[in-house]
Amino acid sequence: MSGGSLEKLLTDIRDGSLSVADGMNLLRESSVLDLGHTKFDLQRPARNGFPEVIYGEGKTPEQVGEIFLRVGDRSNVLATRVSAEMAAHVQSVCPNAEYNPLGRALTLVVKPIVWKQGEVAIVTAGTSDLPVAEEARETCRMLGVRAKILADVGVAGIHRLINNLPEVLAARAVIVIAGMEGALASVVGGLVPQPVVAVPTSVGYGASFAGLSALLGMLTSCASGVTVTNIDNGFGAACAACRIINACEGNSKT
Amino acid sequence: MSGGSLEKLLTDIRDGSLSVADGMNLLRESSVLDLGHTKFDLQRPARNGFPEVIYGEGKTPEQVGEIFLRVGDRSNVLATRVSAEMAAHVQSVCPNAEYNPLGRALTLVVKPIVWKQGEVAIVTAGTSDLPVAEEARETCRMLGVRAKILADVGVAGIHRLINNLPEVLAARAVIVIAGMEGALASVVGGLVPQPVVAVPTSVGYGASFAGLSALLGMLTSCASGVTVTNIDNGFGAACAACRIINACEGNSKT
Amino acid sequence: MSGGSLEKLLTDIRDGSLSVADGMNLLRESSVLDLGHTKFDLQRPARNGFPEVIYGEGKTPEQVGEIFLRVGDRSNVLATRVSAEMAAHVQSVCPNAEYNPLGRALTLVVKPIVWKQGEVAIVTAGTSDLPVAEEARETCRMLGVRAKILADVGVAGIHRLINNLPEVLAARAVIVIAGMEGALASVVGGLVPQPVVAVPTSVGYGASFAGLSALLGMLTSCASGVTVTNIDNGFGAACAACRIINACEGNSKT
Amino acid sequence: MSGGSLEKLLTDIRDGSLSVADGMNLLRESSVLDLGHTKFDLQRPARNGFPEVIYGEGKTPEQVGEIFLRVGDRSNVLATRVSAEMAAHVQSVCPNAEYNPLGRALTLVVKPIVWKQGEVAIVTAGTSDLPVAEEARETCRMLGVRAKILADVGVAGIHRLINNLPEVLAARAVIVIAGMEGALASVVGGLVPQPVVAVPTSVGYGASFAGLSALLGMLTSCASGVTVTNIDNGFGAACAACRIINACEGNSKT
Amino acid sequence: MSGGSLEKLLTDIRDGSLSVADGMNLLRESSVLDLGHTKFDLQRPARNGFPEVIYGEGKTPEQVGEIFLRVGDRSNVLATRVSAEMAAHVQSVCPNAEYNPLGRALTLVVKPIVWKQGEVAIVTAGTSDLPVAEEARETCRMLGVRAKILADVGVAGIHRLINNLPEVLAARAVIVIAGMEGALASVVGGLVPQPVVAVPTSVGYGASFAGLSALLGMLTSCASGVTVTNIDNGFGAACAACRIINACEGNSKT
Amino acid sequence: MSGGSLEKLLTDIRDGSLSVADGMNLLRESSVLDLGHTKFDLQRPARNGFPEVIYGEGKTPEQVGEIFLRVGDRSNVLATRVSAEMAAHVQSVCPNAEYNPLGRALTLVVKPIVWKQGEVAIVTAGTSDLPVAEEARETCRMLGVRAKILADVGVAGIHRLINNLPEVLAARAVIVIAGMEGALASVVGGLVPQPVVAVPTSVGYGASFAGLSALLGMLTSCASGVTVTNIDNGFGAACAACRIINACEGNSKT
Amino acid sequence: MSGGSLEKLLTDIRDGSLSVADGMNLLRESSVLDLGHTKFDLQRPARNGFPEVIYGEGKTPEQVGEIFLRVGDRSNVLATRVSAEMAAHVQSVCPNAEYNPLGRALTLVVKPIVWKQGEVAIVTAGTSDLPVAEEARETCRMLGVRAKILADVGVAGIHRLINNLPEVLAARAVIVIAGMEGALASVVGGLVPQPVVAVPTSVGYGASFAGLSALLGMLTSCASGVTVTNIDNGFGAACAACRIINACEGNSKT
Amino acid sequence: MSGGSLEKLLTDIRDGSLSVADGMNLLRESSVLDLGHTKFDLQRPARNGFPEVIYGEGKTPEQVGEIFLRVGDRSNVLATRVSAEMAAHVQSVCPNAEYNPLGRALTLVVKPIVWKQGEVAIVTAGTSDLPVAEEARETCRMLGVRAKILADVGVAGIHRLINNLPEVLAARAVIVIAGMEGALASVVGGLVPQPVVAVPTSVGYGASFAGLSALLGMLTSCASGVTVTNIDNGFGAACAACRIINACEGNSKT
Repeated sequence: MSGGSLEKLLTDIRDGSLSVADGMNLLRESSVLDLGHTKFDLQRPARNGFPEVIYGEGKTPEQVGEIFLRVGDRSNVLATRVSAEMAAHVQSVCPNAEYNPLGRALTLVVKPIVWKQGEVAIVTAGTSDLPVAEEARETCRMLGVRAKILADVGVAGIHRLINNLPEVLAARAVIVIAGMEGALASVVGGLVPQPVVAVPTSVGYGASFAGLSALLGMLTSCASGVTVTNIDNGFGAACAACRIINACEGNSKT
Repeated sequence: MSGGSLEKLLTDIRDGSLSVADGMNLLRESSVLDLGHTKFDLQRPARNGFPEVIYGEGKTPEQVGEIFLRVGDRSNVLATRVSAEMAAHVQSVCPNAEYNPLGRALTLVVKPIVWKQGEVAIVTAGTSDLPVAEEARETCRMLGVRAKILADVGVAGIHRLINNLPEVLAARAVIVIAGMEGALASVVGGLVPQPVVAVPTSVGYGASFAGLSALLGMLTSCASGVTVTNIDNGFGAACAACRIINACEGNSKT
Repeated sequence: MSGGSLEKLLTDIRDGSLSVADGMNLLRESSVLDLGHTKFDLQRPARNGFPEVIYGEGKTPEQVGEIFLRVGDRSNVLATRVSAEMAAHVQSVCPNAEYNPLGRALTLVVKPIVWKQGEVAIVTAGTSDLPVAEEARETCRMLGVRAKILADVGVAGIHRLINNLPEVLAARAVIVIAGMEGALASVVGGLVPQPVVAVPTSVGYGASFAGLSALLGMLTSCASGVTVTNIDNGFGAACAACRIINACEGNSKT
Repeated sequence: MSGGSLEKLLTDIRDGSLSVADGMNLLRESSVLDLGHTKFDLQRPARNGFPEVIYGEGKTPEQVGEIFLRVGDRSNVLATRVSAEMAAHVQSVCPNAEYNPLGRALTLVVKPIVWKQGEVAIVTAGTSDLPVAEEARETCRMLGVRAKILADVGVAGIHRLINNLPEVLAARAVIVIAGMEGALASVVGGLVPQPVVAVPTSVGYGASFAGLSALLGMLTSCASGVTVTNIDNGFGAACAACRIINACEGNSKT
Repeated sequence: MSGGSLEKLLTDIRDGSLSVADGMNLLRESSVLDLGHTKFDLQRPARNGFPEVIYGEGKTPEQVGEIFLRVGDRSNVLATRVSAEMAAHVQSVCPNAEYNPLGRALTLVVKPIVWKQGEVAIVTAGTSDLPVAEEARETCRMLGVRAKILADVGVAGIHRLINNLPEVLAARAVIVIAGMEGALASVVGGLVPQPVVAVPTSVGYGASFAGLSALLGMLTSCASGVTVTNIDNGFGAACAACRIINACEGNSKT
Repeated sequence: MSGGSLEKLLTDIRDGSLSVADGMNLLRESSVLDLGHTKFDLQRPARNGFPEVIYGEGKTPEQVGEIFLRVGDRSNVLATRVSAEMAAHVQSVCPNAEYNPLGRALTLVVKPIVWKQGEVAIVTAGTSDLPVAEEARETCRMLGVRAKILADVGVAGIHRLINNLPEVLAARAVIVIAGMEGALASVVGGLVPQPVVAVPTSVGYGASFAGLSALLGMLTSCASGVTVTNIDNGFGAACAACRIINACEGNSKT
Repeated sequence: MSGGSLEKLLTDIRDGSLSVADGMNLLRESSVLDLGHTKFDLQRPARNGFPEVIYGEGKTPEQVGEIFLRVGDRSNVLATRVSAEMAAHVQSVCPNAEYNPLGRALTLVVKPIVWKQGEVAIVTAGTSDLPVAEEARETCRMLGVRAKILADVGVAGIHRLINNLPEVLAARAVIVIAGMEGALASVVGGLVPQPVVAVPTSVGYGASFAGLSALLGMLTSCASGVTVTNIDNGFGAACAACRIINACEGNSKT
Repeated sequence: MSGGSLEKLLTDIRDGSLSVADGMNLLRESSVLDLGHTKFDLQRPARNGFPEVIYGEGKTPEQVGEIFLRVGDRSNVLATRVSAEMAAHVQSVCPNAEYNPLGRALTLVVKPIVWKQGEVAIVTAGTSDLPVAEEARETCRMLGVRAKILADVGVAGIHRLINNLPEVLAARAVIVIAGMEGALASVVGGLVPQPVVAVPTSVGYGASFAGLSALLGMLTSCASGVTVTNIDNGFGAACAACRIINACEGNSKT
């Protein structure tokens, strides 16, 4: 509940147009869709600028199906980390849901997406990083942000990146996705002026330690101002890019 | 060297107004101030939107002094991680340099700072996180970005954060600085819509593992779209915020 | 064997009503049910206030079935970390055993549970933490402690916790169960005066490192007096809560 | 602010005895002593049952001295992790402050301590664990809880523990402090029915990894219901014990 | 090749009874059974007092079967870490091989075992540690050392250990096998005078980190003179015990 | 693109024989085979002396099949980390591809291999290290370097290594492959003068931590000048050996 | 208290020659020298075959001095990890104490050492491992075990070890002390039949991680039956060797 | 002792020109300079192609001084990791020794250095990596290998590397030295065909973990055939380069 809404509520109480008990209930009821196992956060768009997204892992297909049914009658829905089995179940109860198997994302669009100004460039070091890139792209799409994937431009053949630099420079924010040593984040960070969100991936073996090497490498990047998300967190990087796009949009309006 | 400059240079060569040898030299000489021990990157403002900053640790006072003298005749200079001893030496050869002992930052302002639109809120969990906050604030200042510190609003007394929320919401980007478990990043990330850059600090002991706990906590934040920098990296967080401010400024112009 | 019993035994020996050899046997036989592969500890209620609980992992279904048969003729039995297969086997030899598949707990109630005074609030950050919460709830039940689960009130939508605070404040002890960064423990610990036992869960991916991030975050919580159990250890948290309930009950009697 | 106070405040607003603006201010002002660098949490006794304690590390002597002066005119004050130098400075501005050099605790008692019912037993494995035990004991004292230290009863000579068991069994809660492998927590946890809070210490070398081995050992204790604090966190263990004592006291009153 | 044999060989060369080339060949051929994929070490009994043992993991059933066939015509054979599938294959080509499925050991006895003087006590903390104990027992047997397993005497119910202490004290060397926090090694090490070899096991979950906690706990044991093997290394502990038995036997002969 | 080629291109532009636009296209097009999901690096032989090799993991069989078809019409192809399933698919579309199941390498030879001067010795500690050795051998073969495997000569029976030393000394570079503690690298490094590339393997269990122990052991080898690759990286070691062979070949020509 | 003594005590109680209260006191008093800060374990020689040794770190010079005075009137005393300052203080109050600065051991001999049969060989990889070797040697001496140091025979020059092998083979037990990768333990373990106790040292830098690499290497040694102590734990290795010597001595008597 | 020498020795024994005892002595005496604390390996040039180098850390100045005196009468001497204090002492007894304080290397040249064919390029990411580069350069020099340092060409300003590429390409082997994320190794490895030895440095803070991030990044480099040394191990990298130079030199002679 925003500061303005809170002031309104307090004023209504003072004016007697709202009872104290009702005020306390209002504070509670407007904010959560309570399904027992899940308390779906309805206030998140107001607070964060984008809705709660369902994290599929550790939930049962039935729980996710119920959320799609209950939330999907009022707004678009996105679930990440959705297995093929979970997707099949949800689609059986909610036939309009669409599944992206590479990005493991399940989406339901019931209202037209309103596109924001400014595009995001999603750059990957290798072909094997594509699942994370797809998760990021789907998330951007559901948040109304256009995104473009530039795949397999890692530093072992750095001319591939140089060739694609103009496309990267045209975006408002850049997501760099890389596994192994994650050096692409440093190189991109050193070459472009935009916000750069680095996503380490679990691509690699041995001393990659399931993404730890890329994570540490990106955190200690010699390129200034590169920020980092969790390993394989394409969703989080897209949300971060969306926060940036929103901030700029706010700016362009004032 | 930007794409436009490169095209110009190639065109000049084609037109005969530039020899091939001169073209190759130009590509080299315009970009670096070579001091032997250091190759100061003069192209960084063109590429990244802000100048190279001197990382004081592991350099000798003499090296840093020389950089201040050589760079400081053409542009403002910022050095981070500067000990009191190093600062004293540099000030002896470059008397206009100013030292912030809490933030361990040394600055030289030879051209007026041009302030950009949009402010950054720097939020700290505890009093002990202030050195990192000061490093971030000094960096923002040298990059032309206004920043405001809200100290000691950690989640053990969450009303302190709630009380200061309006000031946080007024900023264009938010830097959250916290040690120990770093939970403040999740709470702020859940309450505000702006880009949130989280900086784990080495404040704490035992299982804090010199900032590792806060780092892991911030990377796995349940609040969507929080991005993370290296431990104690106030400088990097400020650069990230500056990249965001620049992106928005670019937007407002178009 | 308690101090009182030991004195009695020594006195009986002195008085000649007990031979030395019998005394040594008594010390041994009253304390253990020896099944060869397992030495079931019969003294634990006297020492710890609650019986030995069977840890299912690493045991064969046959071993667990035998323990249920042998122990279940004298007292209630609880086994944790029981797979569906193991449960099916035990139920085939001990049909009154009941299985909670979400909490992976197998129980046999042959004597009515005697409920203690004071309730435990089990608070979870997300839906995916429910299996750990169920293990804690089943353990509480078998130890005679009433427990209530408040699910999915994590800090990404902190109003969900605030809304449920009165129910948390009504309990005598609080168990906080959270994965990812585990920030909920700090927030709850900062808001309530009761004993808070935090259970990190393996919910999450990447830098969650199978619960390590939540574990470290809870250990370094800025909220004073939060204590921590092993990752996913709902059983241990319930035992800790039971120790607290027992301590208070002892108090209320004196 | 408790639920009751909040209802009162809202009622006053409804009745017109409190303006909306004043209500918002009241919510803010009653809760924090704002010193600029520090926002001392005045609501903590109401919320947690004990006051905010000053963590000395990372603060300047001047900051701590100022807190003692400003807080010490209304309530008792405790600071932990205080170096001898910091203590000397604070005592120079606040002469009644007392310093415990072994426990590195600085205390100021301006109101008589009100002792609660029930004692805490602090058990240490070795002589080198005494600083942590002293920190716990001082914290207990300032929170009105009596505590008794039983030192050097580690499992290498387990008869030392057995000899002291009656004293341990007489307490309401037990704090076990051990470095190296921390096995004492398991042995005590297996022998007593009370709440057991285990504190790993950094005593040891090599594979002790500054307390990590003891920490992991205590977290994975085979004794049920042992909970754990951060390494060397005598303060946190005392707070946890105090939460238990408070819970029992609440019980004995009802 | 022992020092004596080497001197003999050199003497033979000097005396002309052995050519230089033959000497070099002899040094090679007497020592290794070369199967291409494997160079089975035939000198190990002379050097170490016990034969090379086959480590099953990472080998194919065919390779192990071939080794059994080729080595089994001259001496007894032991293979550890043998899966049921591998065992079945080897038994199909070498029908006298016997498989211990709990200990995952495959043995072939073609010469009667010669028993050495002195027994080994194998003590386990829990039922789940039995596979490691069985591997140790089988290894002892094949090395001619009698061993006895005392299972499930962990410190959560320490009277179980005390009851069995006389049997432990009767052995010449003690192997302690424990998972979780591994505290049993410290307690046994504190109670007995014999050589104590501690084997951490991967029994446990969460912060057990697959045996790391037990390993670190045993390495930092407060009981003096406890030594440690790799996690789950029942085989290695048995070899260490055998080295001790051999050393004592050597002693009793002189 | 080499320095010479770049000068030529710039000269052509100056002379007017190449337009600026064509120059920019040429720089791009000659270097990459763009398949959408993959940007196959065609410049790598010129830059590195050997072609890009396909890393099979994380790619789909279809993607790898397409690369074999598209690249295999102009040059030999090697893919590593290829599962049997992936190999079967690629062979179905590209029947001349050959699969080495032990080394998990898939090769296609369309042009005769040109053998370079100098051989590589591949030394393994145990039989279980053979898959890594085979990957190295296949890579050497495809890069035109002869390689010979000496298997199972680990330090537990050091005479096996001594016996094979002449063969090791005959090579130009040595690859040492070992799991567990990886001591073979130190022993070989201490006995031979050649470049020694050490490959830790994930052979082992428990404290081997999937190759970490061997990795750390090789990195800290007391033998001077041993260098190390990633765990199980037979491919990388072969490339390093090939770089050495190439450097020497360059030398012998000048 | 041994089983025999316990039976005697119980019999005395039965016979009336000992009161119950006296029996309980006797059990306590005979076993501990209680100094308040320290409960010196007087039963250890009976239980473990050697007396309690003082661990100097974390104790004050005054505490150690007091222990020397109080214990040194009845038996020999050994303290390890003693700084020069602590040694000076203890010598000021107990002038007969002798200090070994390299081994950081402080000893007081008031009764002639009784030498046991069988010698220990202490083998070090490098000169920098000598402090650990000296600690082991002093401990052996105080436990009545003769020990001989063979220094600087690491595997980078393996002929140095081969040259000294006869001396190693003459010992009853072998202690191998090595830092860096610790490969010497594997090589010695592969060459000798005796019990081998490996001590990793913190000698090294970088990926040595203060002894972790050597520790892991020794734990995963391919030589069978090598056991390991904590990093730099020369004391523990000597105690382990002493346990072996004692076991053999027991054997030779029967 | 090389294979040829061994054959000669055996032949001499056969011919009677050498007694067996003398043969055994010869094998020992020719190989080691035994100083008690140190067994200086005189065979290393024959075996490895370069002499033993003294590792200064953990040795006393007196020990190092003695080695310089005893070895320095027959050959050049190099000691690494030499503090200023140690250097001063050695120079007091051996005045011709020269100290490089940045590289912490102490050298004594008594015979003219014989320069080998082929140069080494030492490339550093930053100014702070210079100490490691200097250690490498001094080692190269003492091994007769010319080396050239190219400092501060890290990837944050990648044009600095591109500008210096011709100089890198002119070398026979390349050493890349970088801290933080170590990305320079991947970029150089992708751009040049020579053997590339990567040295991670401890330059950085926080998640650099004293060089661990750079180490992991280099081990998982996406550039094929980059090999890695220990953190800060300029000495080892130089030895590796020297092994390569020697291998090529051998080649050019045949």
